[in-house]
Amino acid sequence: VTGLLEATVASMPGADDDAARETASRLEEKTKPPGSLGRLESLACRLAAIRGSVPGEHVSPAVVVAAADHGVWEEDVSPYPQAVTAQMLANFATGGAAVSVLARRAHARLVVVDAGVLDPTPVSGVRSAVVDGFRGTRNIVREPAMPEHVAIGLIEEGIGLAGGLADDGIDLLGVGDMGIANTTAAAALCAALLPATPGSVCGPGAGLDEAGVARRARVVRAALERHGLDRPPDAASPLRALAAVGGLEIAFLVGVILGAASGRVPVLLDGFVTGAAALVAVGLAPDSRDALIAATRSPEPGHSLVLDRLGLEPLLDLGLRLGEGSAAALSIPLAAAAGEIVARMATFESAGIARA
Amino acid sequence: VTGLLEATVASMPGADDDAARETASRLEEKTKPPGSLGRLESLACRLAAIRGSVPGEHVSPAVVVAAADHGVWEEDVSPYPQAVTAQMLANFATGGAAVSVLARRAHARLVVVDAGVLDPTPVSGVRSAVVDGFRGTRNIVREPAMPEHVAIGLIEEGIGLAGGLADDGIDLLGVGDMGIANTTAAAALCAALLPATPGSVCGPGAGLDEAGVARRARVVRAALERHGLDRPPDAASPLRALAAVGGLEIAFLVGVILGAASGRVPVLLDGFVTGAAALVAVGLAPDSRDALIAATRSPEPGHSLVLDRLGLEPLLDLGLRLGEGSAAALSIPLAAAAGEIVARMATFESAGIARA
Repeated sequence: VTGLLEATVASMPGADDDAARETASRLEEKTKPPGSLGRLESLACRLAAIRGSVPGEHVSPAVVVAAADHGVWEEDVSPYPQAVTAQMLANFATGGAAVSVLARRAHARLVVVDAGVLDPTPVSGVRSAVVDGFRGTRNIVREPAMPEHVAIGLIEEGIGLAGGLADDGIDLLGVGDMGIANTTAAAALCAALLPATPGSVCGPGAGLDEAGVARRARVVRAALERHGLDRPPDAASPLRALAAVGGLEIAFLVGVILGAASGRVPVLLDGFVTGAAALVAVGLAPDSRDALIAATRSPEPGHSLVLDRLGLEPLLDLGLRLGEGSAAALSIPLAAAAGEIVARMATFESAGIARA
Repeated sequence: VTGLLEATVASMPGADDDAARETASRLEEKTKPPGSLGRLESLACRLAAIRGSVPGEHVSPAVVVAAADHGVWEEDVSPYPQAVTAQMLANFATGGAAVSVLARRAHARLVVVDAGVLDPTPVSGVRSAVVDGFRGTRNIVREPAMPEHVAIGLIEEGIGLAGGLADDGIDLLGVGDMGIANTTAAAALCAALLPATPGSVCGPGAGLDEAGVARRARVVRAALERHGLDRPPDAASPLRALAAVGGLEIAFLVGVILGAASGRVPVLLDGFVTGAAALVAVGLAPDSRDALIAATRSPEPGHSLVLDRLGLEPLLDLGLRLGEGSAAALSIPLAAAAGEIVARMATFESAGIARA
């Protein structure tokens, strides 16, 4: 573990309970029955605890979507050709993807990152985080996905990006992923880190049929066995598991999560793949958990296990399973609304309204 | 039943299945795995079916919040003084209430309606829908809440308001309610119309304790018995139940729902009280159900029964129980996002992306 990652983990702040309490106490003064805005109120308190201050009127959101390719694709675990990763990377940058539309709607800056896509189309608006020219993971059934120094390098790229966004005043950060076959990598990571059986974390992802799901579970089992990660109940070392069976975009997102948490920027997790990244981040720095907010519950079966482990209750439960940060972007208005309630609602006193 | 209500019920359009199918077929071309945006996709199709056209890029939302007082308040069914209804009416108009903040955030026009508040504070920005000077319902344990001609008059005021909003280009309409003790009126209406037992539809509302909930259930039972509405399994006549045990703001909202549905404007229901209004509307014009979208699931136990009866699955489940249209306003960005996905996402062909 080198300098930046080590320093980030060591300086991880925890929740600021005073800011949360102050927010809760302001909400008590607002013109509504106590608690009647439900989880919008607890969300406001959580934002306060993460940021270390009572939410203000405005929010400056961003969404980071990171893409990379996966060698395990050759095991027939995705219905899509591998070239779709590069095609979607360009689609993010040119504004045609779901996350492009939803981030724009939420007035969020969209940061598109190439963390190791094979043959990317040259297109403006894509930021490269490729480490040592390493593009596409190896097939995890046969080899480690990436060397450990590449994993660390990508994490540190992510930490750097999140730090820069925090310096720019970004105070709410959605994370998203793209990578054909990355549901399989995420499932392997979750199986190793929860730990859990391959069968319990494998679902249809972007559209596998029943036979495909069974094949994915066999591939995950083979990868775990190949790398000695199949020994529950002890969970694996997060960094070793990440390098062995993870993904390049997942490694980068681990860094984004750690960097945001370290800069007191709330992180809106997306679906199953960003959940796997969060498991790694929390494995490396347990206090980073305090910075996480779950945007959605994915229908992917492993995601509920991840949410339980992280102790997160998602904001939305609309069957979203696209990834790419689409659910994170869709939930930004909820977080913005939570802050605005605190900042802008009248109090019983200011409005001259009687209490119960 | 007089002219406008009769004509509105008679001219109620149903769902436009062609527009829904065309929307679904456009979604199939978008650059994402089929169905991966889950209920955002079905929401887009539902908006299309209601409006009779594929959702466009922009939405013009409004939220109508109607307030009135309730004679049943004197049965000690609310922890709040009755004057809070008038105070909150002013708070809506001056911008300090939750729905004021959330509607502004959603770029929605907020229409504040006095449907029969006792001693309203004169404040600009409140529209009166008071019929024949009738302010505050009678105590439903002893008398009918309102004469039937007042109920019909209020419904027609609501139809007129919704028609005017549709003429102004409003194409998404949230509805909300305010009225100290109106949870009791809504519970009585639901018990009569579902039908259901008083115990199954009575909860804490704005903040009753256990003894208060039991008292509310006894009050509902007494009101049903007083008006001969306690004879399951046959549900009561919607108009008779509304006049006997309903509320003035509920009657007005019945009209808003019918008017919006008749003008092909999607209606975002709020919580339990607007759910009771929807039960009356659907009782009067069954096809108006096709225009309804449930914003939230209220923790109030009767609300889930209402949603089941209306066949609606709510968009949000965040424990919101404030009413006043706050949940409807909070869900406007989801409906707007559903439309924008259809209008603005690239297709596989336009973006040059391979299919599965």
